[in-house]
Order: sequence, then C-alpha cells, then structure tokens
Amino acid sequence: MTGPSQEYSSGSLKPFFYPHAIALVGATREETGIGHRILESLQNGGFTGSVIPVNPHATEIAGLRTFPSLRDIPSPVDLAIIAVPAGLALSIIDDCAAKQIPAAIVITAGFAETGDIGTSLEEQLRERVHRYGIRLIGPNCFGLMNLDPAIRLNATYTPIIPPAGRVALASESGGLGLAVVTAAQRLNLGVSSFVSVGNHVDVTVNDLLEYWEQDPNTDVILLYLETIVDPQRFRRIAERVARNKPVVVLKAGLTDAGQSAAGSHTAALATNDKAVDALFAQCGVIRAKTLEEFLALATGLSSQPRPQGKRIGILTNSGGPGVLCADSCAAEGLSVPELSERTRSALASFLPSMAALRNPVDVIGFATEEQHAQAVETMLTSDELDALIIVHVSVRPGDNPPVAAGIIKGIRAARQVGHKQPVHLCWMAEGDLDRSFIVDGETIPTYRHPEIPARILNLALAYDAWRQQPCGQVPTYSDIDLVAAKEIYTKALTDRGAGWLTTQETHALLAAMKIPLIPGGIATTAEDAVKLAQKIGFPVAVKLASHQIVHKTEMGGVQLNLADDHAVRDAFNRIRARLEQAGQLEAMEGVLVQPMLSGGVEVMVGMTRDPLFGPVIAFGLGGIHVEILGDLQFRVAPLTDRDASDMVKAIKGYRLLTGYRGQQAVDLKAIEDALLRISHLAEAIPEISELDLNPIFALPEGHGCRIVDARIRIEPSRHTV
Amino acid sequence: MTGPSQEYSSGSLKPFFYPHAIALVGATREETGIGHRILESLQNGGFTGSVIPVNPHATEIAGLRTFPSLRDIPSPVDLAIIAVPAGLALSIIDDCAAKQIPAAIVITAGFAETGDIGTSLEEQLRERVHRYGIRLIGPNCFGLMNLDPAIRLNATYTPIIPPAGRVALASESGGLGLAVVTAAQRLNLGVSSFVSVGNHVDVTVNDLLEYWEQDPNTDVILLYLETIVDPQRFRRIAERVARNKPVVVLKAGLTDAGQSAAGSHTAALATNDKAVDALFAQCGVIRAKTLEEFLALATGLSSQPRPQGKRIGILTNSGGPGVLCADSCAAEGLSVPELSERTRSALASFLPSMAALRNPVDVIGFATEEQHAQAVETMLTSDELDALIIVHVSVRPGDNPPVAAGIIKGIRAARQVGHKQPVHLCWMAEGDLDRSFIVDGETIPTYRHPEIPARILNLALAYDAWRQQPCGQVPTYSDIDLVAAKEIYTKALTDRGAGWLTTQETHALLAAMKIPLIPGGIATTAEDAVKLAQKIGFPVAVKLASHQIVHKTEMGGVQLNLADDHAVRDAFNRIRARLEQAGQLEAMEGVLVQPMLSGGVEVMVGMTRDPLFGPVIAFGLGGIHVEILGDLQFRVAPLTDRDASDMVKAIKGYRLLTGYRGQQAVDLKAIEDALLRISHLAEAIPEISELDLNPIFALPEGHGCRIVDARIRIEPSRHTV
Repeated sequence: MTGPSQEYSSGSLKPFFYPHAIALVGATREETGIGHRILESLQNGGFTGSVIPVNPHATEIAGLRTFPSLRDIPSPVDLAIIAVPAGLALSIIDDCAAKQIPAAIVITAGFAETGDIGTSLEEQLRERVHRYGIRLIGPNCFGLMNLDPAIRLNATYTPIIPPAGRVALASESGGLGLAVVTAAQRLNLGVSSFVSVGNHVDVTVNDLLEYWEQDPNTDVILLYLETIVDPQRFRRIAERVARNKPVVVLKAGLTDAGQSAAGSHTAALATNDKAVDALFAQCGVIRAKTLEEFLALATGLSSQPRPQGKRIGILTNSGGPGVLCADSCAAEGLSVPELSERTRSALASFLPSMAALRNPVDVIGFATEEQHAQAVETMLTSDELDALIIVHVSVRPGDNPPVAAGIIKGIRAARQVGHKQPVHLCWMAEGDLDRSFIVDGETIPTYRHPEIPARILNLALAYDAWRQQPCGQVPTYSDIDLVAAKEIYTKALTDRGAGWLTTQETHALLAAMKIPLIPGGIATTAEDAVKLAQKIGFPVAVKLASHQIVHKTEMGGVQLNLADDHAVRDAFNRIRARLEQAGQLEAMEGVLVQPMLSGGVEVMVGMTRDPLFGPVIAFGLGGIHVEILGDLQFRVAPLTDRDASDMVKAIKGYRLLTGYRGQQAVDLKAIEDALLRISHLAEAIPEISELDLNPIFALPEGHGCRIVDARIRIEPSRHTV
Repeated sequence: MTGPSQEYSSGSLKPFFYPHAIALVGATREETGIGHRILESLQNGGFTGSVIPVNPHATEIAGLRTFPSLRDIPSPVDLAIIAVPAGLALSIIDDCAAKQIPAAIVITAGFAETGDIGTSLEEQLRERVHRYGIRLIGPNCFGLMNLDPAIRLNATYTPIIPPAGRVALASESGGLGLAVVTAAQRLNLGVSSFVSVGNHVDVTVNDLLEYWEQDPNTDVILLYLETIVDPQRFRRIAERVARNKPVVVLKAGLTDAGQSAAGSHTAALATNDKAVDALFAQCGVIRAKTLEEFLALATGLSSQPRPQGKRIGILTNSGGPGVLCADSCAAEGLSVPELSERTRSALASFLPSMAALRNPVDVIGFATEEQHAQAVETMLTSDELDALIIVHVSVRPGDNPPVAAGIIKGIRAARQVGHKQPVHLCWMAEGDLDRSFIVDGETIPTYRHPEIPARILNLALAYDAWRQQPCGQVPTYSDIDLVAAKEIYTKALTDRGAGWLTTQETHALLAAMKIPLIPGGIATTAEDAVKLAQKIGFPVAVKLASHQIVHKTEMGGVQLNLADDHAVRDAFNRIRARLEQAGQLEAMEGVLVQPMLSGGVEVMVGMTRDPLFGPVIAFGLGGIHVEILGDLQFRVAPLTDRDASDMVKAIKGYRLLTGYRGQQAVDLKAIEDALLRISHLAEAIPEISELDLNPIFALPEGHGCRIVDARIRIEPSRHTV
C-alpha cells in the first residue's frame, strides 16, 4: 500500500520533464521489447537531449553507443528509464544511486499489482528510493511525455504524440492515459505533459499537482484516479491549485466490481465514493462522470474561455438536434433565452424565409457559407448570449466544407471585435466527423452528440462559482474542554475496551464539546423518573438508556407524550418489563426523561471514520429521510465554515429548514455550529470511531438546537492526540 | 394542430413502401433543387419501380420522360412525391385525386411550422386528403426509404444509404432522421425502412407502428418524437407492438426551451415530460435519454440477442477502461461476478503471466491474436456469464488488426458450439475507430466509451422483464354510483360554475365512488362540533372546511389531538375568529371533526388533466414527501391493476409502507384500489379537472385506508360522459 511520500520540493520533478541525458536501461533491438519501443519513441519524437541505451549484450543500439550498465556511462545522466524484468529493478536502483541519477521511471510491471511477492518487491523498491533520495515514477507504468517544443520528450511506448498544448494529464492507468493522449490528436486537444503514475511508490498525483501548479505551460490539469493517495494532502493541494487552474478528475473504482477490478490493477485501496464526492466538492475539483465527459471537459476547458453567465445561444441547421441541445441546456439549469427583436430582425435580413429565429436559431438545411458566417457573427455580437452552441447535421457531404468555412468566418469576425464567449460545436457530419475547427489558433471543441456541450458549460460555470466564493475557514473553539473529553473515553476504553459509550458518558462528552443536549436526565428507578418529569414539566418522553441496545423503538423503548406521574411510572415499568422478558435487563442503564419539544425540525449529524479519508461527517433530516430516502450530505473533516453551510443547503429537504408552510425558519447557525464542533471532535479524538446524533431538534431561529439522542463508539487508535 | 387520423388499415401504407410507379412532382434539372436531389436519390439508389418526373416546363429530365402534370401521365401511379412550393400543394393533391393516386409524400415546408398562414394551409391540406381518402406523409418532411432489396427505394434528398437490415425508424425531425440513417453506415446498423413524418397531417407514428408491427423485415422500431400524437392510441398500439418488437423512443422537447424549439420546428403541442415517462413505462417503450444512447440501443438491440441474466463478463487489455466498464455495470445493477477456479485456470493456461483473471479479465496490452481468441471463447463458453463486454485500447496501431481478428475468431468459435450470449465491444483504437466487427453476418455493436454497453444491456433486461409480466387489466366496478356522482357535479357547475367542490360535495362524490373517507363529519357550530366529537370519541381533530381556502394549516385551520369538549369548542371558535379577523368568514363552510388515527402511514393520490394526455394520476407519501422531496410516481389513466401496483412500488419511500422499524405493513391493496377508483372516476367524469386526496391514511394490512383531506375541482368539459 502507498504511504505518504517524503518531503521534496516540486523542483525535484524537473529531471522527469526536462532531462538533459536519459539512460534507457533495458534498451534492446528486439522489436517487440518495451525497451525497443521506448527508444523508438524517444528518437522519433525528436527528443532534444541525449539518449544512452544500457544493455549488457550490445555496444550499439539504433545507432547509439550502448553501455553494459549505468555505472559504465562516462557522462552525467539525470533520468533513468528502466524497462527490465521486475527482479532486476532493485539492483538498477542501486546503480542509479551510484551514478547519482536523481530520477527514474520504472516501466516494468510485476509489483504490487500481481500479489504478495510483487508487493514485497515494491516495498523494497520504495524503501530503497527513499533511502537514496531518488525520485521515482512507477513501477508498472506507461511512461511520460513532455510536449514542450524545447524538449519534445516521448518516453512512452506509443508512437502517437498529441499536439503540444496546455493540458496536463496524470493517469493511474496506463491504458486510460494512452486512450486520452491518442484521442488528443483527433480532438485537437493540446497536451503539455502526460505522466502514467503506475503504482506510485514515490511520485504521486499530489506531487504532480504541485509541479503543474508552477508549470507555465499548463492551464488545465486532468487526473484519472482509482484511489486517492493521502486524501488530506490531496485536499490541501487541489484546493490551492484549483483556485488558479481547473482540476478535472475521472475517478473510477466507484463500485464493488470496479474496486475489485481496480484492486487487481493498481493495488489501490478501495475508496468510499461518497467521501470522494465530498472531497472533490470541498476542494473545487471538477468531476467527470464518464470517459466521454472527461475528454469533453479537457477540450472544452482548455481551448475556450469559461462562460460569464447562463444565457446560451443555439445555432442549428436542423430542428431535432437543436431541440435535444435546448433540452440538455435546460436540464443543466442553463437558459436558452428568446432573442431580442433587434437580433431577430438582423438574422431575418439574411437567413432563408423558412429559418426559425427565436433561439434555437434554425438556419435550415440549405443555408450557405455566408448565411452561417453572418448568423454566427450576429449571435456572438448580440450581447444577449454568454455562450454559443452550434449544431450541424450534414445534409449532403458537399455542404460540409462551406458550412465549416462559414462557421470559422463568423467566429473570427466576432473575435476581431472583442466578443470572446465560448463556442462549442456539435458536428454531426458523417464521413467528415473528425474535421478540426481552428480559428486563428483557437480550437473550437467539436463533439458528436448535441447533449454534451451544455454539460461542459454548466460544469465550467459551477467551477467559477466555486472560485468566486472565499475559502472556508476551519474555526477554533475556546470553550471546549478536551481534557474532560479525553478522561471520559480513556476511562471507558480502560474499563470496557472498544464499544459504545454509555448514555451518561455520551452526554458528558457532548457537554465537554459544548454541543447542546436536550434538557432532562437519566433515571434508574420509576420514582426518579417521575421526579425528573415533574422538574422538566409535562408532557415528557421516557426512553430506554442503553449503549448495548441499538433499536430502541422496535422494542418499545421509546414512550412519547406522557402527560402525568402515572404515565411516566407506567412507561418506566413497561420498558423494564420488556427488557426483563427479553433477558436483557442488564443492558438497561436506566431511562432518559426528556421534555416533548415542538416547533422545530428533526435533523441528524453523523460521523464515520473511513480507513483512507479519515472522519467523514454526514448531515440530513432525521428519521426516514436518512434511512429510507438517503437524503444525506457528506464532507470530509476538518469542515470549514463554508463546508458546513454548503452541506446544510445541499440536502433536498433544505426548504423544510427555512420556514415551510408558515413554520418559522430553524436556527441554521446552530446546526452549522454542531457540525463544526463534531468535525473538531473527530479530528481531536481519533479514538471516536463512529458518532450518531439522531435526532437533533433544530429550534426556531435564535433558539439553537438540542440533541435528543446520541451514540458514540470508541476504539483504541494508532494515533495519539 | 394534429387531430387523430381517420381509420385506415395499415395496408393503406403499402404504396409508400412498395410503390410500382412514383410520380415526382417538382422534378427539376436545377442541381440545388430538392426535386432534383430526390430524383438523383431514386435513380442512384436503384429503385426497382418506375419514376415519372412531373414538370410543366420540361419533356425530359435525367433521361426520363416528363409530364406537365399528374393528370397527363398515361400509366397508373401509386405514389406521388411532391416537392413544389407550399402554395401549389393543394392543387397537386386535387390532381392526385383525379389521377386516383392513393398515397402522397409532401416534402415541401411552409406549413404549420411557419405561423398562422401556414397553419391554415395545413388545415386545408388535411381536410382535402381526408376527403379524398389519400394517405399523406408530411408536409415539411425529408422523405422515406425502404431498403428491402426487392424495392430499393430512397425517396429522400440524401445520397447516403444505410445498410439494409431489420431496424425501422420514424422521425419527427428530418435532420435527426438524417443523422441516424447516415450514421448507420459507420455503425453497421441495418435499416429496414425510414420515414420522416414531418408535420404528420395524416400518417402518424401510430400508423407506422402498426405497419411495422406486421412488417416481416422489421425487428426493432426506433422513434424520434417531439410530441405524442393521440397518446391513448399510442399507448394501445405501442403496448401491443412492444410485446413482440422492441420500441425505442428518443423523446425531445422535455423542457421549456426544448418545447419552444420543438414548437417552432414541428408545430407540436408541448407535452408534459412526466406524463411521457409514465406512458412509456406503462406500454413497455424503451426510452433513450440521449442521441448517443438512441444509436447504441439501435445497434445493440438489432444485432445481438438480449441477455438472459445479469452476469456480465468484461474482457479488456487495459486496466482503467476495464474498471470504468465494471463501474458502469454496477451502476446499472448488473453483476460482474468473479470467475470460477476452473475458468480462471483455463485462462491462465494461455494468457500472459501478468494477466488479471478475476473479471474484468485483463489480458494486458501485448496479448496476441490467439490469446484474444482463446480468452473470448473461454469466457463465452464458461456458462458463467450472460453477456460479454470487450474493452480494447490500442497500444500501437499495428496491434489492431490481429486483436480484431482474434476477437472475431473467439466469438465465432463460441457461436459454433451454441453459445449465443450478447457481445458488445468498446473499441478505443484511434485511427481505426470505425472498424466493423461482423461474425458470419452477425454485427458486434461497437462503441467508443466503456460506459455505454452496460446501459444497453440493462435496458434490454428491463424490457424483457416487462414482456414477461402479464398485461395489466383495467378493472370494472359494480359498486360505483355514477348517477349520484353526476348529480353532484352537475348541480355544482350549474350553481357556481367552474371551481372547487365544497367539502360536503367532495365527500358525497367520493362516497358515490366507494372511496373510503375518514369517519366524522362537518359541523357548522361549536356545539355541533362537540357533539360530533363525542360521537367519534376523543381525541379528535378539528379542521376548517372550505373550498375557497387552500392553505388551511398556514392560517391555523388545522387543530389536532383535541382531548375534550372544551378543546373542541375552543378550536372551533379560534378557527372562526381567525377567519373573521381575515375578513373571510363567508369562506367557512364549517369544520370537519375527525378521529385522530394512529398506526398507519400518510400517502396521497392526485389527478390532473393534461391537455394532451388526459388524466394523469399521481401517487406518493403524504406531506413533505410530495411537496419538498418530489417522491411521486405518475401514470396515465386508465390505470391497469399492474400500473397501480407498479406505481406504489416505485416510490422511494415504499419501504415505509411494507413495515418499517417494527411497524405493521400497510394495506397496499386498499391503496391500489383507491388509485384504480380515482382513475375510473377521472375517465368517467371529464368535468373533474383536478383532484387531490392528501393525506390518505393507509392503515395496517386488512384495515383499508381513509381519506383525511380531499379537494376536487370541476370545469365544464367539451366531452360528454
């Protein structure tokens, strides 16, 4: 398994991207050998540095002087590419150290992805590079490309090189990376650099994010991930990077089958998809749902400005596809506003009489080059639209070149007078599907289906909305008594070991955190219960107090709306009798006696500890909303104030909290405060493995909230506070 | 607007598909003319019948003898294709009648899609063809194709002809139809026939469904729709057809923007998307969400058998895309089961040592033709999988031909020994993306992204599950008193006109339908309320009775849990005072006094009347589940018993009805009965424009349900009962 990498500066990655001299260990003349293919790629790609093959059985390969081992090379080497059988990798790393090579890429497979022996080998590899201070990419990877014309480095085994551009890609799957870089040519997607991280024993996606953050050639960062290495570090870095450069992630291994497949493939830990979603939402990462969306985001975000608003113009030569495009805009929350009388008149002055002018504008199937050009220009310069989507269906193959020329002409004319809105193109022209649209160096992203552009535009808008909000802050609390809290769980762990806290302990712990409990208390006899009820005031609720019995309602342990002494006594005795009958009397710590609250809304806050992500905080409405309808929001701790506010607003039932049907709005600040304190508690006390405050009674604004029922589970932790 | 078409037999469409002699009115030598292009298509497509150009200014066009008008043609003509300006269309139809031509296709645009004058012209066109008994396709359409080798008819203006096959397509958008038929070549999608229905003044999609139901060349029917013409007829026909042939619909115009665009495009009525979804669910229609899915369903359903179960095998040469495919299977509810020890051993015997064998099976990037062939054959013949998805990423262009050959070889070997599971292929091979995979005449559907095949397989499974269930029945009721019901609303309409029924009327109407109301009654004085409460037994609820005031809770009109005489009197007086204060006392019909029920679950039943679909019935849990969470199911009336049962099961909160947390299950049969009676009521009494039973208290099994609150709105209807 992958641990956090050592502390290096991002400058330590420079030899991977800008090596002066590469030694290729495992270079061979055998055409099917990986070493051979990489050598071919380096040479054909036009690498501007020098390449030194290493092979004990040759003195010359592909016209290059070849050395038997790294140690024999007389000149300095700053990058070793290793394509030898896995069993030889460790000794080659020793050679790297001896030769003072600062960086190595291990292409070779046969490590943790293959089982126990491979895992052991991988551990040794990690230990060795960390000991030597060598930066290492791989093993089990596909290599690296840097398309900067100053270096022209293709250190992979595909001969297909994408156009140079401003998108960086890191992939945990070589095949997926390959699929993207080879598609880049067709999509006219400009790539700055590509790294296949393989089993990431040293260099991780986190390191690459930091490198690309500083890389002047990179504007957009794409990541294909099957796990998240060191999620807290990912969050910190990604949030910072995403403030300046969009980070787009395609995360696979969401489901059991996918995880199992990802497991066999990159030896990654299975990850909880809800935590992944939460983490991405918290740090502004744009999540692609499918490979198609990933590619479309790459082209859409790198080659076009992001829209400044939601007003989308649609220009089409065909009704149906225009309607599908308009539907997709509305589904994404974008608007397709009717054009002004002025703009419609302008369009009418040159379009055929059959054209539809409202938006979508349908120029009809036989519109000419000039009509397309004028329509594009008119819409882009109308000042009524934040983006333009063009949808073209080819009627006859011969129509495509003039229509394409018209579109480019129209965009150019609008650009020349300063109209820079994004333009996306759905080009449904069989036989001519892969046509490139480039306007004075600007690529117009081109898709095959009319539903995709709206999705890209909306994700771009959501990303900008995230950027425009200030960063959240993790609040600090001066009123919390962590010492008291620690005493409680330490004693419980010592006395009973791992398990649920008693009701008394739970209440004391929450009180130490200043998380407000409902008034009332615990009674161990019927008469004590009656006394408590009198003190609280009728009606009251009487509930079984037990840390062992979880489903209290099902066994009659919750008695509500008790109006007098008699009812309370009766309730106590019934609960006691029921437990006795079930032979569980020793599980009864007593009963909770609580006032019946009214005028509020039940909500819940939960916390579980994910093995990879650490504490994950949940929020939802209480009762069936969580259990049956699953209307929950998750965020990874520590929560910022913004996270807490976002997650409350994001549940479907939010309207119920803001004053529904003449009710008062509830105290949202108090709910957010409870969320933030639970996050703080989870961070401060790793021994708390699970926590469930359900229900919490959220009272009207200004009156706070009250925890009605709470459960806290503790386990010994490997970490100390 | 389009009305129901006249009654014709589906044989009346035969001249469109199998004409002996076509007259092309508007044939011209001008290359840009539509008439010219259609003539070219007819000739180049190899039409086996005769083509007779009609043009008053020529005696010969494209080598064919040309007549000045239809009336001048000496020989019989059974299909006229009309491509003349809209203003001439009516007189050409007169000529068709004079010449006794039974069928015409009007290509010409300029009808209802263009505004008022066009709409009037279209009405005249409809009236005229109905009067003459001429069947007409269009106007404003793209034409028709029949690819039966016996006829080879391309009567459209695209020269691109799809391969002949077993998929029929009707499209309400010419452009969308064009996009599909031109893509068919690349997708190797075999088409039987294609009809662009245009403004469907006579021949509608419903007629075509009936034609293709009988067509021996058609196995799968595709429809692109922007509206549903005569939904009740569509439902009847589609349900019958879908029992034998899959009907796949891409329905656009879902959203305001889309509807507006669809409106400008085909002059269609805007349709309610929820009603569309309900209708499709009721009649087994497979709904494609996007154009991409529409095309994938076409290839997937026409060229492959449907899976017999959910066990999916994935064979890949690349980890990441395999993981994405596995994720998509799980997201669709399919399983990717681990393979048996036996199968894994078999795979291990010929695959490279680095291969992953669990499923997804990863043969790794350098697997050979023979390894691919054996892996495909081993998986298909394992008897452990109901379908196979192959995901290939091209590492080097040269690898593609041998891998493709291996895949075909493996499938062939499995087919030869009787293994017929569906095989879908994700072929991510840049530069070779459009390769065809045909195994002894069987097309293997090929996609570009690994997430699509799972969706297609799941839709195919859901379709078969629908087919395997028996047809639902619309029940009849002998205990309903429609005469009494009619008296109530007739009197109300006469007395007050359109509006809400009073509480008394509402109760009487529901009683006539034998829909069970909660016991209790209406009181107009405080003392009457007390008397009623005593009769019912305390505690009771007292609620404002008013057909004018809708939001009763908000104005304090609902008082619950009243324990004694005093509380009831007090409640009455408070409600009265509140209304008086608001100056709305005259809106108070009295108060409802009802028992407080316990031990059940609140649900709701609603009915609205869609202008196009007629009564649409809604079901959900009561309260915020409907209003805030939107957990509602819709079906179009008349409901069958199966519809009622399906919609109850389909809400997210269904678990709450089947015994949640130790509660008893509620009386589902009683809920279904209420739904069916409301459907019956809505069908029988078109004057009921809206109905809302909310809440209905669903009692434990065997105890029925009780309507607690009900509202019924009536309006004069154009239809009589």
